[in-house]
Amino acid sequence: MIPRNIAIVGLGLMGGSLGLALRKRKPGLRVIGISRSKKNIRAALRKKMITEGTTSLAEGVKSADLIVIATPVQIIPALVATIDMFAKAGAVVTDVGSTKGEILKNIRRFRLKNIRFVGSHPMAGSHKTGLEAAEADLYKGACVFVVRGKDTNAKALSVISSLWRTVGSYVKTVSADEHDKIAASVSQLPHLIASALVNTVPAKALPFAASGFRDTTRIAQGDPELWLDIIRTNRANLISELNRFTQKLEQFVRMLKRDQKKKFLAELTRAKNIRSRIRAPKT
Amino acid sequence: MIPRNIAIVGLGLMGGSLGLALRKRKPGLRVIGISRSKKNIRAALRKKMITEGTTSLAEGVKSADLIVIATPVQIIPALVATIDMFAKAGAVVTDVGSTKGEILKNIRRFRLKNIRFVGSHPMAGSHKTGLEAAEADLYKGACVFVVRGKDTNAKALSVISSLWRTVGSYVKTVSADEHDKIAASVSQLPHLIASALVNTVPAKALPFAASGFRDTTRIAQGDPELWLDIIRTNRANLISELNRFTQKLEQFVRMLKRDQKKKFLAELTRAKNIRSRIRAPKT
Repeated sequence: MIPRNIAIVGLGLMGGSLGLALRKRKPGLRVIGISRSKKNIRAALRKKMITEGTTSLAEGVKSADLIVIATPVQIIPALVATIDMFAKAGAVVTDVGSTKGEILKNIRRFRLKNIRFVGSHPMAGSHKTGLEAAEADLYKGACVFVVRGKDTNAKALSVISSLWRTVGSYVKTVSADEHDKIAASVSQLPHLIASALVNTVPAKALPFAASGFRDTTRIAQGDPELWLDIIRTNRANLISELNRFTQKLEQFVRMLKRDQKKKFLAELTRAKNIRSRIRAPKT
Repeated sequence: MIPRNIAIVGLGLMGGSLGLALRKRKPGLRVIGISRSKKNIRAALRKKMITEGTTSLAEGVKSADLIVIATPVQIIPALVATIDMFAKAGAVVTDVGSTKGEILKNIRRFRLKNIRFVGSHPMAGSHKTGLEAAEADLYKGACVFVVRGKDTNAKALSVISSLWRTVGSYVKTVSADEHDKIAASVSQLPHLIASALVNTVPAKALPFAASGFRDTTRIAQGDPELWLDIIRTNRANLISELNRFTQKLEQFVRMLKRDQKKKFLAELTRAKNIRSRIRAPKT
């Protein structure tokens, strides 16, 4: 069951889309939007993402049973600590940050008194940012990682799982460590590869980029500050993924130098077969 | 001006789409489809890609003024040599192969007597293959490289340029060497990167791939045999592009190890800015 009073901290792509989805699927819910920007609150009210809004974190969370933090990764721990001072005892808090281990480590330092925190990471998004890019179906069919640790409250975990199922996602429960390894390989590594590719291609060749190049590099348009945060909080995993990827490319170079047709064909065939089995979620 | 009698050798994605585009834009043209497969010829006639079809190369090219070879790269030189034996004196021949230098080198060995060859490479395509994937607008808005060498006949070059403009492409005249460098960096390097990424990600992480990963790796679904041909005929350029790309990734790893925020932010920002300026062609 999902509680009736829900607060969303941060009204960008992720927070705005969550509000839209909740209002669309459960019109009876009270959705409190919290943002530093009055303009964003007005826009969120107009777009029916939230039922009420405030610029005050203390004010916004005090009557909420469920609070979702949808801000950049770096400020999540401090927000959790602040929310702990103002929220109701037993309120359940989650986030949508793209890395989990470092966030949790920093949150643990605060020794929470009131709230129950359970981290989430929806595998949904866009290179676009801000409330204007929000979509009611962003979470539909997507996988949401929900983190279970030794100190995770079972009831809080169940509330957070219900939240994501309500907006059409399916939930995968993992440890923070498992999550960060998976996210490094399927989300952050591709981002770094796309950025590196754009920065490698000679300027005079860029005008001739066709659909293949455009798709391969689309995610390099993501917000640099947001991604810097994400990458810095998952450095160890990313360094190991980058090294593994580089070794594969070095293997390709050796095969090219020796003109090893069969080995190269095996690599291309394997990639085609694996990739062809990956499908977009049904929406 | 584009001649009235046009033969297309190979009725796959590229040849089929060219037939569709020519028939749509110039219904008065005679378009002769040449394929080893009778089934493909029947399908091409039914889909109005061609006005007539034959499995005989000699038969198909003998009355054509313009012949387009739309087959895998590796067999293009031998086809050109064969066409030279059966085509009319002065017939203009082009191809749509993704590499140009090695094809031209091999064609020169044959010392053509009848035909005038000018290589092309349309920067349009799909990971899908075959006649069923053909589209009348595949070439619309796309750049087509047309190769000018020392021995290129100016009139033949003008005929080939007209051909591509007729189907809505814009023409960029380059040397074979320039072409192969550009194609290595914006087409073949991204393909190898996508394949390497798919082959690097641990199997247990793959089910969680979201839209970013799917876009970055879409082209890895391309036909392995076709791509092996392309890659092998542009090995030297690809090795140097792979090495440059690997150096960029190694630079990323150093920045991560030293947690160099400003430098990393500069890389991400540069990539975002460059990539955001690349637009899909208007269709």
